[in-house]
Amino acid sequence: MKKVQKNGRIGIISSILTDNPNQIFTLTHFCDVFDCAKSTISEDIDTIRELFQNYGLGNIETVSGAAGGVYYNPLMNDEQIKDFTKELCSIIDQPDRMIPSGYIYTNDLLYSPQLSKKIGAALASMFNGQEIDYVVTVETKGIPIALMTARALNKPMVVVRNQSKLTDGTVIYMNYITGSNNRIKTMCLPTRAIKKGSKVLFIDDFMKAGGTAKGILDLMQEFQAELVGVGVLMATKEPERKLIDDFKTLVWLDTVDTINKKINIYSAFE
Amino acid sequence: MKKVQKNGRIGIISSILTDNPNQIFTLTHFCDVFDCAKSTISEDIDTIRELFQNYGLGNIETVSGAAGGVYYNPLMNDEQIKDFTKELCSIIDQPDRMIPSGYIYTNDLLYSPQLSKKIGAALASMFNGQEIDYVVTVETKGIPIALMTARALNKPMVVVRNQSKLTDGTVIYMNYITGSNNRIKTMCLPTRAIKKGSKVLFIDDFMKAGGTAKGILDLMQEFQAELVGVGVLMATKEPERKLIDDFKTLVWLDTVDTINKKINIYSAFE
Repeated sequence: MKKVQKNGRIGIISSILTDNPNQIFTLTHFCDVFDCAKSTISEDIDTIRELFQNYGLGNIETVSGAAGGVYYNPLMNDEQIKDFTKELCSIIDQPDRMIPSGYIYTNDLLYSPQLSKKIGAALASMFNGQEIDYVVTVETKGIPIALMTARALNKPMVVVRNQSKLTDGTVIYMNYITGSNNRIKTMCLPTRAIKKGSKVLFIDDFMKAGGTAKGILDLMQEFQAELVGVGVLMATKEPERKLIDDFKTLVWLDTVDTINKKINIYSAFE
Repeated sequence: MKKVQKNGRIGIISSILTDNPNQIFTLTHFCDVFDCAKSTISEDIDTIRELFQNYGLGNIETVSGAAGGVYYNPLMNDEQIKDFTKELCSIIDQPDRMIPSGYIYTNDLLYSPQLSKKIGAALASMFNGQEIDYVVTVETKGIPIALMTARALNKPMVVVRNQSKLTDGTVIYMNYITGSNNRIKTMCLPTRAIKKGSKVLFIDDFMKAGGTAKGILDLMQEFQAELVGVGVLMATKEPERKLIDDFKTLVWLDTVDTINKKINIYSAFE
């Protein structure tokens, strides 16, 4: 293959970094790919860093030392998160999403690869800089946005289930009480899913009273892991007091008015 | 902002296309971003197309006509799929994955953002060129790889559940018989999840007798949708005759020998 020029290197490095968020690549790796000097790659990275910043594509970060290198952090800034959460509200507040019982149909947006990716990037951005070993979620609807958050952070996802399966091996089972209607439910997780001493971020699509998050807080103690953050796509205004003190949400759901067909929802960033 | 040079345009366009697989961008869009002529962007795209091809990053494809533009197809070629499936086998055949009952623990690899992305790209590549409107899966373990397949194809994902939820609205419920042990199970899907006349690709992590895939085939008929493909990460050699005729798998699971602690698994591409 003939030696590639600067614009070729910039294109390939930009693509590889973008496609592998928060994954560290050594400069030597790119030297090998392009058969060129480290100083050349270093200059390319500087160019890409400035480009990404100018076009709001996130940050190119450098890690020094023996395990050092460069990685892409798909960080959204406050303005981008604000714009995106307002866009989300305009998607969610459509009257035809209203289910007669007063619930909101959100499957299509949670299961959209494009939207779930953006939601994941926004959630990850809210916990930027925090030390996180796993992104934990509870089946089922939260899985896509948890996976996309895990992808943005480049950490493994862990799915807590309501019932264990034969392929789970040894499992820790726990009963917990849902916050909204005081029902007893079960959550379980294979013992090998989380290492002792880990720091865990819980991601879910919806929070009402916070019973599930409280359940995860308790379950993590059984794993000698620490819940260091809770992030949800949507939280309800009521009850104001949740079962956990500390969480972050992208949007707030105020009221669902089934008579006038009006969903009142707003960005948490205005 | 000062006018950006060719290498800057190449970097930004490469990043945006990579980050949005199978999403069409008009050349005019990039003309606006960089305030430059269409012919300039067109040359940039030619450069990127050649670059991506040379470095095995997938295809840059062009759509002509009024709705035309350019998009990134994260297509893996046969050699790349073969290498990746062999890598998968070496990850799966570790004795410590064996659960005493003869099952294999795969949660960690299915829930890994990096691996699930590659599995999704490989599965999507196997159905390249086929017309697909939705990627359908059944909860829970297949969701991440189905989402990543949907992401590669830029199509919505749909999750069939074992039980409906209040947020599902009107639902179609169906009983089906699992192929392996003749148990009756239930699958359900909101009526609004799939439009009539759609073409559907079913993705799952595991296939033994094919009962779930057969269930999906039947369920899709209720939605007047057509199952046009079935792709799984892993299928068992036995039973040789599955309940559906046509499916594709990345790896074959032959035997799980719990006495000698040996998992026999091989790539479907050797």
